[in-house]
Amino acid sequence: MEDRVMGYLGPAGTHSEAAARWLEAHVRRADGAWRLQPFADIDEVLHAVETGEVASGFVPVENSLEGAIHVTLDTLARSEALVVAREVIWPVHNELMARCDAGAVRRIYSHAQPISQCRAYLAAHFPQAELVEVASTARAAKLVAAAPPEEGLAAICTARAGELYGLSPLAHEIQDSMANCTRFFEVVRRGTPPAAPQEKLLIICQLDGSRAGSLVNVLQEFAVRGINMTRIESRPARTRLGDYIFFFDLETAAGEACIEAALAAVRAKCSWLKNLGAFPVLQA
Amino acid sequence: MEDRVMGYLGPAGTHSEAAARWLEAHVRRADGAWRLQPFADIDEVLHAVETGEVASGFVPVENSLEGAIHVTLDTLARSEALVVAREVIWPVHNELMARCDAGAVRRIYSHAQPISQCRAYLAAHFPQAELVEVASTARAAKLVAAAPPEEGLAAICTARAGELYGLSPLAHEIQDSMANCTRFFEVVRRGTPPAAPQEKLLIICQLDGSRAGSLVNVLQEFAVRGINMTRIESRPARTRLGDYIFFFDLETAAGEACIEAALAAVRAKCSWLKNLGAFPVLQA
Repeated sequence: MEDRVMGYLGPAGTHSEAAARWLEAHVRRADGAWRLQPFADIDEVLHAVETGEVASGFVPVENSLEGAIHVTLDTLARSEALVVAREVIWPVHNELMARCDAGAVRRIYSHAQPISQCRAYLAAHFPQAELVEVASTARAAKLVAAAPPEEGLAAICTARAGELYGLSPLAHEIQDSMANCTRFFEVVRRGTPPAAPQEKLLIICQLDGSRAGSLVNVLQEFAVRGINMTRIESRPARTRLGDYIFFFDLETAAGEACIEAALAAVRAKCSWLKNLGAFPVLQA
Repeated sequence: MEDRVMGYLGPAGTHSEAAARWLEAHVRRADGAWRLQPFADIDEVLHAVETGEVASGFVPVENSLEGAIHVTLDTLARSEALVVAREVIWPVHNELMARCDAGAVRRIYSHAQPISQCRAYLAAHFPQAELVEVASTARAAKLVAAAPPEEGLAAICTARAGELYGLSPLAHEIQDSMANCTRFFEVVRRGTPPAAPQEKLLIICQLDGSRAGSLVNVLQEFAVRGINMTRIESRPARTRLGDYIFFFDLETAAGEACIEAALAAVRAKCSWLKNLGAFPVLQA
């Protein structure tokens, strides 16, 4: 039997790869032979799922310090083909790694999210360093490894990426809060049999924002049925400033009939509504 | 009399500078002598307002395609010293500028937001080009100007930045949607007399997210009083995954007594609530 493929945000050594490998080891082995395939960005991972190039795609959706990963939410809102199969909650460890000493650091490379997550640490310890955003933490490690030590480059990356590229650690766990987790979604094509247990549900809808109380009218349909909403996120509808779409994360504990009734009621109050599926939540 | 100073996100040639100059020309002249001072990032602008180094700070808060500017929201939530004095809605025009021909472009520099705003255009016209995020659109223009044309660098920037650094336009208005606006806040220290007319109000609060319906209970206090909420934004509380703070943009049309009553009711249902002030909204 041919291997099935899960796409992820590469290259090797990123936080995404570490979390994808964990999912593969803890869930996939029971589920047959799987192979991981890196892609250059989140857009490409999700596009490969849509076209069928890969069976599933593994992408970040939210960080506990920095908030939503917009490209993931926006693509899920736009696509007719994608649903969520699993959620993984992944604790993030950021390392500062380099070929030079801490005192010689003049420029620090990383992805935009780790730079934000470590802002207070960097301001306190490296106030003079230039912060350079690149496409991934692994790319940051690679760039630092390629430059001579006297240039004073450092990378915020995973310990694994630093080791892959021959860097030495300058500081461990430099994120501003120890409560640093990233949520990932495994995304599959609509029609794929869902995974169990179905603990959470993701709903996307567009409301008429020009009317007072249109959001409260929708939320009431969940509240009166005792359906807990664990998260609400608004994103621009990309039509005009002031038009938004909303993402609701709902717990399924209230039961299927209850959820179905709430969704029918909400659908009647929205411009459009998409059900992105019910899925298990895995704590890594 | 000494000039008063408004800090903004520099350097010269950014979208922020263009909008700040517009505000200075359209509002400030009546208000006495003002001077604009560039800062390297949003954090520094807001910190300079907090310390009194500048009288006011002008920073982006939301883009109609890309959504919230997180560092602005997070700093407003954390600071006890800052309130909003004015909102400016600024139409964004993105230009592709270079020293080489379009056919020779191998790498495109810009700030993360314009890169996101132009993603569909770039994928269609420059699928092979590497996209490099730098601190500002003006810095992108400067980097491109400094490299020889045969390196094939281009910048997404304002027309003014391109001209400042001697670049030629390759394409105009390359953003994916014509509805591309950025909202800016002019931020001042708490206690500064407010500007008129007070059309909008910004409220920040933290809710107990573990209880079903806690958000709906808050929104109801606005809805029952006919107070229109033009925007809701959630951000991580940075305590643990699943804790959020909420930003509510409210219209003031319902009247001061009505707003005061709603805020008192909401305050009783929150862990904490901050009133970031009522302010005029200016369409540039």
